[in-house]
Amino acid sequence: MSLLVTGSIGIDTVETPSGKRDDIIGGSAIYFSYAASFFTPVRLVGVVGEDCPKSLLNVFEGREVDTGGLEVRKGSKTFRWHGSYVEDINSAVTVEVDLNVLAERAPKIPANFLDSQYVFLANTHPVLQQELLGSLKSPRLVVADTMNLWIQTERAELSKLLKKIHGLVMNDGEAKLLTEKSNLISAARDVLKMGPKFVVIKKGEHGCVMCSDRDTFTLPAFPTEKVIDPTGAGDSFAGGMMGYLSTQGNFSSATIKRALAFGTVLASYTIADFSLGGLQSTDRDQIDDRWFAYKQAMDF
Amino acid sequence: MSLLVTGSIGIDTVETPSGKRDDIIGGSAIYFSYAASFFTPVRLVGVVGEDCPKSLLNVFEGREVDTGGLEVRKGSKTFRWHGSYVEDINSAVTVEVDLNVLAERAPKIPANFLDSQYVFLANTHPVLQQELLGSLKSPRLVVADTMNLWIQTERAELSKLLKKIHGLVMNDGEAKLLTEKSNLISAARDVLKMGPKFVVIKKGEHGCVMCSDRDTFTLPAFPTEKVIDPTGAGDSFAGGMMGYLSTQGNFSSATIKRALAFGTVLASYTIADFSLGGLQSTDRDQIDDRWFAYKQAMDF
Repeated sequence: MSLLVTGSIGIDTVETPSGKRDDIIGGSAIYFSYAASFFTPVRLVGVVGEDCPKSLLNVFEGREVDTGGLEVRKGSKTFRWHGSYVEDINSAVTVEVDLNVLAERAPKIPANFLDSQYVFLANTHPVLQQELLGSLKSPRLVVADTMNLWIQTERAELSKLLKKIHGLVMNDGEAKLLTEKSNLISAARDVLKMGPKFVVIKKGEHGCVMCSDRDTFTLPAFPTEKVIDPTGAGDSFAGGMMGYLSTQGNFSSATIKRALAFGTVLASYTIADFSLGGLQSTDRDQIDDRWFAYKQAMDF
Repeated sequence: MSLLVTGSIGIDTVETPSGKRDDIIGGSAIYFSYAASFFTPVRLVGVVGEDCPKSLLNVFEGREVDTGGLEVRKGSKTFRWHGSYVEDINSAVTVEVDLNVLAERAPKIPANFLDSQYVFLANTHPVLQQELLGSLKSPRLVVADTMNLWIQTERAELSKLLKKIHGLVMNDGEAKLLTEKSNLISAARDVLKMGPKFVVIKKGEHGCVMCSDRDTFTLPAFPTEKVIDPTGAGDSFAGGMMGYLSTQGNFSSATIKRALAFGTVLASYTIADFSLGGLQSTDRDQIDDRWFAYKQAMDF
């Protein structure tokens, strides 16, 4: 089934205890698309400036990612992020950020993408998320991400968005900020009252919590010693989850759990190298093997 | 099978966002014994002062806990701890602590306890843990707990202890301190090199990690909104785990996982009330039901 993602594309500089990489490809839409493309064709909508080297955007060559919605905007500069995990591998410190083209108007969704059935609205201004969503014909599953900034400054627009989507993916800090609850199960239940049918709270190295009207469950992260660069783990998680869901055609408890487990596995590949290196080093067979090992580890 | 626990017995004052309780029964051996007694008879070894109200020690009435190793020492005072979770329900702040009788000589293990097959050495000075262990005839499974203080001040004695036990249970902060590794899987692997056949790292609200030569797996905490007082959760976890293990007679991967899941369930009851209230409100049938629901939630 057609899976659409709208989100950021960035040029990152990342420092971790394993080293430093300058000018590598990043951004939520990039990680999401690569992760989801192991499962299903992906339609990518995003915008970069004319300074973005073509070589950086070649990452989807040979993959089923339709970049027809990728705009290279003249006169604009690409989003840039410089982050450091040197102090704490589980928590990024932003050294520098230049929104650049992300602070301008949103990219347009191409006409041939408007029939997309599965939609992931990666983190951006909730007004833009609503605009993007409003232009789609009849999406079957819409999941969004958000961030602290919009929770703090755009609560009214975020509330409107939450009434229009099926699922919300957010991290634990954002869930606590949005609901003012310190217990994540309580926080998740409060999010459900705001509109979404289900919410997934990402806890980084501690896995995730999923809540819906009918289910509450938690899954641990895939246990691994190989943590080189956690950038993009959350977006890869969402990509694996949505990629799998869009191939299933149902939203049973078991399907959603399997989807979260695929998300968990995709995130474990992303953190094993800088940028897309971890995802580029694997294939669907290896992903399925790790998924099955993870499933078995949880079986007792 | 006979299960022996040596550990602290204390009179606690606890403050949490749900209220304050003065002079309630606590201590590692108390929580461990109560939790384990849902599975198997428990032999308790511990010491209190003559100030300890008899009513506080009546908590095991009607339960299969042999308190023949509970010494009431004349002229001594009971261990007291005053803790607060008001700022953060997941992290205790010690307001006041009086070691009292815990700073004196250890209690003796009664002669009729010396044939115990399953042994849990709750946290105390590693020299005392070795002494207690040395007096036992031929224990089949010995698991110990420890704490930051001994890791920092008694490293040599702790190292000797680690070579004599089968399993170590500790929390994430202690594991990082002991191994100087920030990744918990790496930390667990390093602990294995120090002697134990397996290590369980408790992560509080985030569950646990288990590592042995043959397995590495993680289990999330039981998802619950009802967190009244987390005191004793870790000791109840250990009690549930050891209680179940001592009824099984094998240490297969599946058995250990099931044991950790029972530990997880027992901890979820403990945190639902002050002191032993949560454990006192349940029974083996309810525990089995919750265990099965937890198992099913992890099945996909």
